[in-house]
Amino acid sequence: MSKVRFSLAMSLDGYVAGPEQSLENPLGVGGMRLHDWAFPLAAFRREHGLEGGEVNASTPIVEETVVNVGAYVMGRNMFGGGTGPWPEEPWNGWWGDDPPYHTPVFVLTHHAREPLVMQGGTTFEFVTDGVEAALGQARAAAGGKDVVIAGGASVVRQALGAGLVDEVNVSLVPLLLGGGERLFDNLGDARPELEQIRAVDAPGVTHLKYRVLGPASG
Amino acid sequence: MSKVRFSLAMSLDGYVAGPEQSLENPLGVGGMRLHDWAFPLAAFRREHGLEGGEVNASTPIVEETVVNVGAYVMGRNMFGGGTGPWPEEPWNGWWGDDPPYHTPVFVLTHHAREPLVMQGGTTFEFVTDGVEAALGQARAAAGGKDVVIAGGASVVRQALGAGLVDEVNVSLVPLLLGGGERLFDNLGDARPELEQIRAVDAPGVTHLKYRVLGPASG
Repeated sequence: MSKVRFSLAMSLDGYVAGPEQSLENPLGVGGMRLHDWAFPLAAFRREHGLEGGEVNASTPIVEETVVNVGAYVMGRNMFGGGTGPWPEEPWNGWWGDDPPYHTPVFVLTHHAREPLVMQGGTTFEFVTDGVEAALGQARAAAGGKDVVIAGGASVVRQALGAGLVDEVNVSLVPLLLGGGERLFDNLGDARPELEQIRAVDAPGVTHLKYRVLGPASG
Repeated sequence: MSKVRFSLAMSLDGYVAGPEQSLENPLGVGGMRLHDWAFPLAAFRREHGLEGGEVNASTPIVEETVVNVGAYVMGRNMFGGGTGPWPEEPWNGWWGDDPPYHTPVFVLTHHAREPLVMQGGTTFEFVTDGVEAALGQARAAAGGKDVVIAGGASVVRQALGAGLVDEVNVSLVPLLLGGGERLFDNLGDARPELEQIRAVDAPGVTHLKYRVLGPASG
Protein backbone atom coordinates (compact mmCIF):
# COMPACT_ATOMS: atom_id res chain seq x y z
CA MET A 1 0.00 0.00 0.00
CA SER A 2 1.14 3.50 -0.74
CA LYS A 3 2.49 5.37 2.26
CA VAL A 4 4.04 8.67 3.29
CA ARG A 5 7.44 8.16 4.89
CA PHE A 6 10.69 9.89 5.66
CA SER A 7 14.26 8.85 6.50
CA LEU A 8 16.53 11.19 8.44
CA ALA A 9 19.83 10.83 10.26
CA MET A 10 19.61 12.02 13.87
CA SER A 11 22.18 12.41 16.62
CA LEU A 12 21.67 10.61 19.94
CA ASP A 13 20.71 13.99 21.41
CA GLY A 14 17.99 14.43 18.78
CA TYR A 15 19.46 16.82 16.21
CA VAL A 16 19.21 16.47 12.42
CA ALA A 17 21.48 19.50 11.91
CA GLY A 18 24.12 21.09 14.11
CA PRO A 19 24.17 24.65 15.45
CA GLU A 20 24.83 27.74 13.30
CA GLN A 21 23.20 26.50 10.07
CA SER A 22 23.95 28.77 7.12
CA LEU A 23 23.84 28.80 3.32
CA GLU A 24 27.51 27.80 3.30
CA ASN A 25 27.03 25.17 6.01
CA PRO A 26 23.44 23.91 5.67
CA LEU A 27 23.97 21.04 8.14
CA GLY A 28 25.44 23.34 10.81
CA VAL A 29 28.59 22.83 12.88
CA GLY A 30 29.36 19.11 13.09
CA GLY A 31 26.20 18.21 11.18
CA MET A 32 28.04 16.53 8.31
CA ARG A 33 29.14 13.87 10.81
CA LEU A 34 25.52 12.68 10.89
CA HIS A 35 26.26 11.05 7.55
CA ASP A 36 29.72 9.60 8.26
CA TRP A 37 28.22 6.08 8.29
CA ALA A 38 26.82 6.56 4.75
CA PHE A 39 29.76 8.06 2.84
CA PRO A 40 31.81 4.82 2.56
CA LEU A 41 28.86 2.79 1.23
CA ALA A 42 28.81 1.64 -2.38
CA ALA A 43 25.02 2.20 -2.31
CA PHE A 44 25.55 5.85 -1.32
CA ARG A 45 28.43 6.44 -3.75
CA ARG A 46 26.45 4.96 -6.64
CA GLU A 47 23.59 7.41 -6.03
CA HIS A 48 26.11 10.22 -6.32
CA GLY A 49 27.74 8.90 -9.47
CA LEU A 50 30.79 7.42 -7.76
CA GLU A 51 32.24 3.92 -8.02
CA GLY A 52 33.53 1.54 -5.36
CA GLY A 53 32.71 1.52 -1.67
CA GLU A 54 31.58 -0.86 1.03
CA VAL A 55 28.66 -3.19 1.55
CA ASN A 56 27.52 -3.58 5.14
CA ALA A 57 24.35 -3.75 7.27
CA SER A 58 23.43 -0.22 6.18
CA THR A 59 23.33 -1.17 2.49
CA PRO A 60 19.78 -2.61 2.34
CA ILE A 61 18.54 0.34 4.40
CA VAL A 62 19.96 2.89 1.99
CA GLU A 63 18.65 0.92 -1.01
CA GLU A 64 15.18 0.63 0.54
CA THR A 65 15.01 4.40 0.92
CA VAL A 66 14.85 4.99 -2.83
CA VAL A 67 12.79 1.93 -3.85
CA ASN A 68 9.08 2.28 -4.75
CA VAL A 69 9.11 6.08 -4.47
CA GLY A 70 6.55 7.85 -6.69
CA ALA A 71 7.08 11.43 -5.53
CA TYR A 72 8.97 13.56 -3.04
CA VAL A 73 8.03 16.53 -0.88
CA MET A 74 10.68 18.94 0.39
CA GLY A 75 10.90 22.31 2.07
CA ARG A 76 12.11 25.49 0.41
CA ASN A 77 15.27 25.52 2.52
CA MET A 78 16.20 22.07 1.29
CA PHE A 79 15.57 23.07 -2.32
CA GLY A 80 17.70 26.14 -1.64
CA GLY A 81 18.12 29.49 -3.29
CA GLY A 82 17.67 31.56 -0.16
CA THR A 83 14.42 32.87 1.30
CA GLY A 84 11.81 35.27 -0.05
CA PRO A 85 10.69 35.71 -3.69
CA TRP A 86 12.55 33.70 -6.32
CA PRO A 87 15.52 35.62 -7.78
CA GLU A 88 15.82 36.80 -11.39
CA GLU A 89 18.73 34.44 -11.88
CA PRO A 90 16.81 31.20 -11.41
CA TRP A 91 17.91 28.79 -8.69
CA ASN A 92 17.33 25.23 -9.90
CA GLY A 93 18.43 23.24 -6.85
CA TRP A 94 21.73 21.87 -5.58
CA TRP A 95 21.77 18.76 -7.74
CA GLY A 96 22.74 19.86 -11.27
CA ASP A 97 20.82 19.04 -14.45
CA ASP A 98 19.95 15.45 -13.44
CA PRO A 99 18.83 15.49 -9.79
CA PRO A 100 18.74 12.16 -7.91
CA TYR A 101 14.92 12.09 -7.57
CA HIS A 102 13.68 10.92 -11.01
CA THR A 103 10.05 11.66 -10.03
CA PRO A 104 7.93 14.74 -9.34
CA VAL A 105 9.26 16.71 -6.35
CA PHE A 106 6.84 19.05 -4.59
CA VAL A 107 8.64 22.01 -3.01
CA LEU A 108 6.79 23.70 -0.17
CA THR A 109 7.24 27.47 -0.47
CA HIS A 110 5.48 30.78 0.16
CA HIS A 111 6.42 31.97 -3.33
CA ALA A 112 4.71 30.68 -6.48
CA ARG A 113 6.82 29.53 -9.40
CA GLU A 114 6.28 27.61 -12.65
CA PRO A 115 7.21 23.91 -12.61
CA LEU A 116 10.85 23.20 -13.37
CA VAL A 117 11.49 20.20 -15.62
CA MET A 118 14.94 18.67 -15.18
CA GLN A 119 16.66 15.72 -16.85
CA GLY A 120 16.15 12.12 -15.74
CA GLY A 121 12.47 12.43 -14.83
CA THR A 122 12.78 14.97 -12.01
CA THR A 123 10.22 17.80 -12.11
CA PHE A 124 10.12 20.37 -9.32
CA GLU A 125 6.60 21.66 -8.64
CA PHE A 126 6.15 24.58 -6.26
CA VAL A 127 3.28 24.40 -3.77
CA THR A 128 2.19 27.48 -1.85
CA ASP A 129 -0.82 26.23 0.09
CA GLY A 130 0.77 24.14 2.83
CA VAL A 131 2.07 20.69 3.69
CA GLU A 132 -1.28 18.93 3.40
CA ALA A 133 -1.77 20.23 -0.16
CA ALA A 134 1.81 19.29 -1.08
CA LEU A 135 1.38 15.75 0.24
CA GLY A 136 -2.00 15.43 -1.49
CA GLN A 137 -0.52 16.45 -4.85
CA ALA A 138 2.46 14.16 -4.28
CA ARG A 139 0.21 11.22 -3.47
CA ALA A 140 -1.83 11.83 -6.62
CA ALA A 141 1.36 12.04 -8.70
CA ALA A 142 2.93 8.97 -7.09
CA GLY A 143 0.63 6.54 -8.89
CA GLY A 144 0.29 4.15 -5.97
CA LYS A 145 3.94 4.28 -4.99
CA ASP A 146 5.24 5.85 -1.76
CA VAL A 147 5.66 9.54 -1.07
CA VAL A 148 8.94 10.44 0.64
CA ILE A 149 9.36 13.64 2.64
CA ALA A 150 12.96 14.43 1.77
CA GLY A 151 13.28 17.15 4.44
CA GLY A 152 14.10 19.37 6.10
CA ALA A 153 13.12 18.77 9.66
CA SER A 154 10.49 21.51 9.73
CA VAL A 155 8.46 19.95 6.89
CA VAL A 156 8.70 16.57 8.64
CA ARG A 157 7.49 18.14 11.89
CA GLN A 158 4.58 19.86 10.12
CA ALA A 159 3.54 16.59 8.46
CA LEU A 160 3.90 14.58 11.69
CA GLY A 161 1.90 17.16 13.62
CA ALA A 162 -0.84 17.08 10.97
CA GLY A 163 -1.07 13.28 11.16
CA LEU A 164 0.05 12.88 7.56
CA VAL A 165 2.99 10.49 8.04
CA ASP A 166 2.66 6.69 7.94
CA GLU A 167 6.24 5.59 8.55
CA VAL A 168 9.19 7.11 10.42
CA ASN A 169 12.77 6.07 9.60
CA VAL A 170 15.54 7.39 11.83
CA SER A 171 19.22 6.55 11.43
CA LEU A 172 20.49 7.17 14.95
CA VAL A 173 24.12 8.25 15.04
CA PRO A 174 26.43 7.94 18.08
CA LEU A 175 27.03 11.66 18.22
CA LEU A 176 26.12 14.40 20.69
CA LEU A 177 25.84 17.61 18.65
CA GLY A 178 24.89 19.70 21.67
CA GLY A 179 22.72 22.09 19.66
CA GLY A 180 21.07 22.71 16.31
CA GLU A 181 17.73 21.64 14.86
CA ARG A 182 15.82 18.96 16.74
CA LEU A 183 13.63 16.60 14.73
CA PHE A 184 11.06 15.67 17.38
CA ASP A 185 10.33 19.03 18.97
CA ASN A 186 7.31 21.25 19.45
CA LEU A 187 4.95 18.56 18.18
CA GLY A 188 2.44 19.50 20.86
CA ASP A 189 -0.63 17.36 21.47
CA ALA A 190 -0.71 16.30 17.83
CA ARG A 191 2.29 14.02 18.22
CA PRO A 192 1.53 10.53 16.95
CA GLU A 193 1.64 7.11 18.58
CA LEU A 194 4.43 4.93 17.18
CA GLU A 195 5.02 1.20 16.91
CA GLN A 196 8.57 -0.08 16.56
CA ILE A 197 8.95 -2.16 13.41
CA ARG A 198 12.67 -2.77 13.26
CA ALA A 199 16.08 -1.78 14.57
CA VAL A 200 19.21 -2.61 12.56
CA ASP A 201 22.64 -2.49 14.19
CA ALA A 202 25.08 -1.26 11.52
CA PRO A 203 28.63 0.17 11.67
CA GLY A 204 28.42 3.58 13.34
CA VAL A 205 24.63 3.84 13.19
CA THR A 206 21.37 2.19 14.25
CA HIS A 207 18.54 2.23 11.70
CA LEU A 208 15.11 2.50 13.34
CA LYS A 209 11.77 2.04 11.60
CA TYR A 210 8.42 2.95 13.20
CA ARG A 211 4.85 2.68 12.00
CA VAL A 212 2.63 5.62 12.87
CA LEU A 213 -0.55 4.43 14.62
CA GLY A 214 -3.77 6.36 14.86
CA PRO A 215 -4.52 9.40 12.74
CA ALA A 216 -2.36 9.21 9.63
CA SER A 217 -2.95 9.57 5.92
CA GLY A 218 -4.03 6.75 3.65
CA MET B 1 38.00 -3.72 33.85
CA SER B 2 35.89 -1.68 36.22
CA LYS B 3 33.79 0.98 34.57
CA VAL B 4 31.23 3.67 35.34
CA ARG B 5 28.02 3.10 33.42
CA PHE B 6 24.33 3.89 33.39
CA SER B 7 21.19 2.45 31.80
CA LEU B 8 18.16 4.65 31.23
CA ALA B 9 14.96 4.34 29.21
CA MET B 10 14.51 7.29 26.84
CA SER B 11 11.69 8.29 24.49
CA LEU B 12 12.43 8.80 20.78
CA ASP B 13 12.20 12.54 21.45
CA GLY B 14 14.87 12.30 24.15
CA TYR B 15 12.99 12.37 27.44
CA VAL B 16 13.67 10.15 30.46
CA ALA B 17 10.66 11.59 32.32
CA GLY B 18 7.47 13.22 31.09
CA PRO B 19 6.24 16.75 31.85
CA GLU B 20 4.86 17.83 35.26
CA GLN B 21 7.07 15.62 37.44
CA SER B 22 5.94 15.58 41.07
CA LEU B 23 6.35 13.60 44.28
CA GLU B 24 3.17 11.70 43.42
CA ASN B 25 4.18 11.24 39.79
CA PRO B 26 8.00 11.13 39.74
CA LEU B 27 8.15 10.05 36.07
CA GLY B 28 5.83 12.85 34.94
CA VAL B 29 2.81 12.61 32.63
CA GLY B 30 3.18 9.55 30.42
CA GLY B 31 6.63 8.74 31.82
CA MET B 32 5.64 5.34 33.16
CA ARG B 33 5.16 4.26 29.54
CA LEU B 34 8.95 4.45 29.16
CA HIS B 35 9.02 1.15 31.03
CA ASP B 36 6.12 -0.65 29.32
CA TRP B 37 8.59 -2.97 27.58
CA ALA B 38 10.09 -4.05 30.92
CA PHE B 39 7.02 -4.78 33.05
CA PRO B 40 6.06 -8.10 31.37
CA LEU B 41 9.60 -9.53 31.67
CA ALA B 42 10.30 -12.36 34.10
CA ALA B 43 13.72 -10.74 34.69
CA PHE B 44 12.03 -7.49 35.75
CA ARG B 45 9.33 -9.18 37.85
CA ARG B 46 11.92 -11.32 39.68
CA GLU B 47 13.85 -8.18 40.73
CA HIS B 48 10.63 -6.87 42.24
CA GLY B 49 9.76 -10.10 44.04
CA LEU B 50 7.14 -11.27 41.53
CA GLU B 51 6.86 -14.60 39.76
CA GLY B 52 6.11 -15.44 36.12
CA GLY B 53 6.57 -13.25 33.10
CA GLU B 54 8.13 -13.35 29.66
CA VAL B 55 11.56 -14.03 28.24
CA ASN B 56 12.45 -12.06 25.10
CA ALA B 57 15.34 -10.13 23.51
CA SER B 58 15.24 -7.63 26.40
CA THR B 59 15.94 -10.32 29.00
CA PRO B 60 19.75 -10.50 28.67
CA ILE B 61 19.88 -6.68 28.62
CA VAL B 62 17.97 -6.39 31.90
CA GLU B 63 20.07 -9.14 33.47
CA GLU B 64 23.31 -7.51 32.32
CA THR B 65 22.30 -4.27 34.03
CA VAL B 66 22.61 -5.77 37.52
CA VAL B 67 25.58 -8.10 36.93
CA ASN B 68 29.08 -7.19 38.22
CA VAL B 69 27.87 -4.05 40.01
CA GLY B 70 29.97 -3.07 43.05
CA ALA B 71 28.29 0.21 43.96
CA TYR B 72 25.63 2.66 42.82
CA VAL B 73 25.45 6.44 42.70
CA MET B 74 22.08 8.21 42.66
CA GLY B 75 20.70 11.71 43.04
CA ARG B 76 18.73 12.99 46.01
CA ASN B 77 15.53 13.17 43.95
CA MET B 78 15.80 9.51 43.05
CA PHE B 79 16.42 8.55 46.68
CA GLY B 80 13.40 10.70 47.54
CA GLY B 81 12.14 12.33 50.70
CA GLY B 82 11.66 15.77 49.19
CA THR B 83 14.22 18.55 48.96
CA GLY B 84 16.06 20.52 51.65
CA PRO B 85 17.33 19.26 55.04
CA TRP B 86 16.42 15.70 55.99
CA PRO B 87 13.15 15.52 57.95
CA GLU B 88 12.80 14.43 61.58
CA GLU B 89 10.78 11.43 60.48
CA PRO B 90 13.55 9.71 58.54
CA TRP B 91 13.02 8.95 54.86
CA ASN B 92 14.75 5.66 54.04
CA GLY B 93 14.03 5.40 50.31
CA TRP B 94 11.22 3.98 48.22
CA TRP B 95 12.32 0.36 48.35
CA GLY B 96 11.35 -0.95 51.84
CA ASP B 97 13.71 -2.71 54.23
CA ASP B 98 15.53 -4.72 51.54
CA PRO B 99 16.28 -2.42 48.59
CA PRO B 100 17.21 -4.00 45.25
CA TYR B 101 20.82 -2.72 45.29
CA HIS B 102 22.65 -5.12 47.66
CA THR B 103 25.78 -2.92 47.56
CA PRO B 104 26.81 0.51 48.84
CA VAL B 105 24.70 3.26 47.26
CA PHE B 106 26.13 6.79 47.24
CA VAL B 107 23.40 9.42 47.34
CA LEU B 108 24.39 12.85 46.02
CA THR B 109 22.84 15.53 48.25
CA HIS B 110 23.44 19.00 49.64
CA HIS B 111 22.49 17.80 53.14
CA ALA B 112 24.78 15.60 55.24
CA ARG B 113 23.38 12.49 56.87
CA GLU B 114 24.75 9.42 58.63
CA PRO B 115 24.99 6.23 56.54
CA LEU B 116 21.81 4.17 56.48
CA VAL B 117 22.32 0.40 56.70
CA MET B 118 19.49 -1.63 55.20
CA GLN B 119 18.89 -5.36 54.88
CA GLY B 120 20.35 -7.44 52.05
CA GLY B 121 23.67 -5.61 51.79
CA THR B 122 22.37 -2.19 50.77
CA THR B 123 23.95 0.75 52.59
CA PHE B 124 23.02 4.31 51.63
CA GLU B 125 25.91 6.75 52.07
CA PHE B 126 25.26 10.47 51.67
CA VAL B 127 27.83 12.52 49.75
CA THR B 128 27.76 16.31 49.88
CA ASP B 129 30.83 17.25 47.84
CA GLY B 130 29.71 16.59 44.28
CA VAL B 131 29.43 13.94 41.61
CA GLU B 132 33.17 13.41 41.21
CA ALA B 133 33.54 12.68 44.92
CA ALA B 134 30.53 10.36 44.89
CA LEU B 135 31.88 8.41 41.92
CA GLY B 136 35.34 8.26 43.54
CA GLN B 137 33.91 6.81 46.75
CA ALA B 138 31.73 4.42 44.76
CA ARG B 139 34.68 3.22 42.73
CA ALA B 140 36.70 2.61 45.90
CA ALA B 141 33.81 0.71 47.46
CA ALA B 142 33.09 -1.32 44.31
CA GLY B 143 36.16 -3.52 44.75
CA GLY B 144 36.97 -3.72 41.05
CA LYS B 145 33.37 -4.20 39.96
CA ASP B 146 31.40 -1.63 37.97
CA VAL B 147 29.81 1.54 39.34
CA VAL B 148 26.29 2.17 38.08
CA ILE B 149 24.75 5.64 38.06
CA ALA B 150 21.15 4.72 38.88
CA GLY B 151 19.78 8.18 38.04
CA GLY B 152 18.20 10.58 37.76
CA ALA B 153 19.02 12.33 34.56
CA SER B 154 20.66 15.32 36.21
CA VAL B 155 23.31 13.16 37.93
CA VAL B 156 23.95 11.37 34.64
CA ARG B 157 24.34 14.71 32.85
CA GLN B 158 26.75 15.98 35.53
CA ALA B 159 28.86 12.83 35.27
CA LEU B 160 28.86 12.87 31.45
CA GLY B 161 29.80 16.54 31.40
CA ALA B 162 32.66 15.87 33.83
CA GLY B 163 34.02 13.05 31.64
CA LEU B 164 33.38 10.47 34.37
CA VAL B 165 31.26 7.95 32.42
CA ASP B 166 32.72 5.00 30.50
CA GLU B 167 29.59 3.39 29.07
CA VAL B 168 26.18 4.70 28.03
CA ASN B 169 23.16 2.37 27.85
CA VAL B 170 19.94 3.76 26.43
CA SER B 171 16.74 1.78 25.99
CA LEU B 172 15.03 3.77 23.25
CA VAL B 173 11.25 3.58 23.43
CA PRO B 174 8.87 4.28 20.49
CA LEU B 175 7.18 7.11 22.30
CA LEU B 176 6.98 10.87 21.77
CA LEU B 177 6.49 12.38 25.23
CA GLY B 178 6.49 15.95 23.91
CA GLY B 179 8.00 17.40 27.08
CA GLY B 180 9.68 16.60 30.38
CA GLU B 181 13.30 15.97 31.31
CA ARG B 182 15.76 15.44 28.47
CA LEU B 183 18.73 13.17 29.08
CA PHE B 184 21.22 14.61 26.61
CA ASP B 185 20.77 18.33 27.13
CA ASN B 186 22.91 21.26 28.19
CA LEU B 187 26.07 19.16 28.01
CA GLY B 188 27.93 22.09 26.49
CA ASP B 189 31.43 21.65 25.13
CA ALA B 190 32.14 18.88 27.61
CA ARG B 191 29.93 16.40 25.78
CA PRO B 192 31.84 13.20 25.07
CA GLU B 193 32.61 11.33 21.87
CA LEU B 194 30.75 8.03 21.63
CA GLU B 195 31.34 4.75 19.81
CA GLN B 196 28.38 2.50 19.09
CA ILE B 197 28.93 -0.95 20.58
CA ARG B 198 25.60 -2.63 20.05
CA ALA B 199 21.93 -2.17 19.17
CA VAL B 200 19.41 -4.85 20.13
CA ASP B 201 15.95 -4.90 18.51
CA ALA B 202 13.51 -6.09 21.21
CA PRO B 203 9.70 -5.95 21.52
CA GLY B 204 8.73 -2.31 21.97
CA VAL B 205 12.26 -1.04 22.58
CA THR B 206 15.76 -0.80 21.10
CA HIS B 207 18.65 -1.28 23.50
CA LEU B 208 21.69 0.84 22.59
CA LYS B 209 25.16 0.57 24.10
CA TYR B 210 27.91 3.13 23.54
CA ARG B 211 31.48 3.36 24.74
CA VAL B 212 32.65 6.81 25.79
CA LEU B 213 35.86 7.76 23.97
CA GLY B 214 38.32 10.38 25.12
CA PRO B 215 38.30 11.85 28.59
CA ALA B 216 36.60 9.38 30.89
CA SER B 217 37.33 7.90 34.28
CA GLY B 218 39.30 4.74 34.83
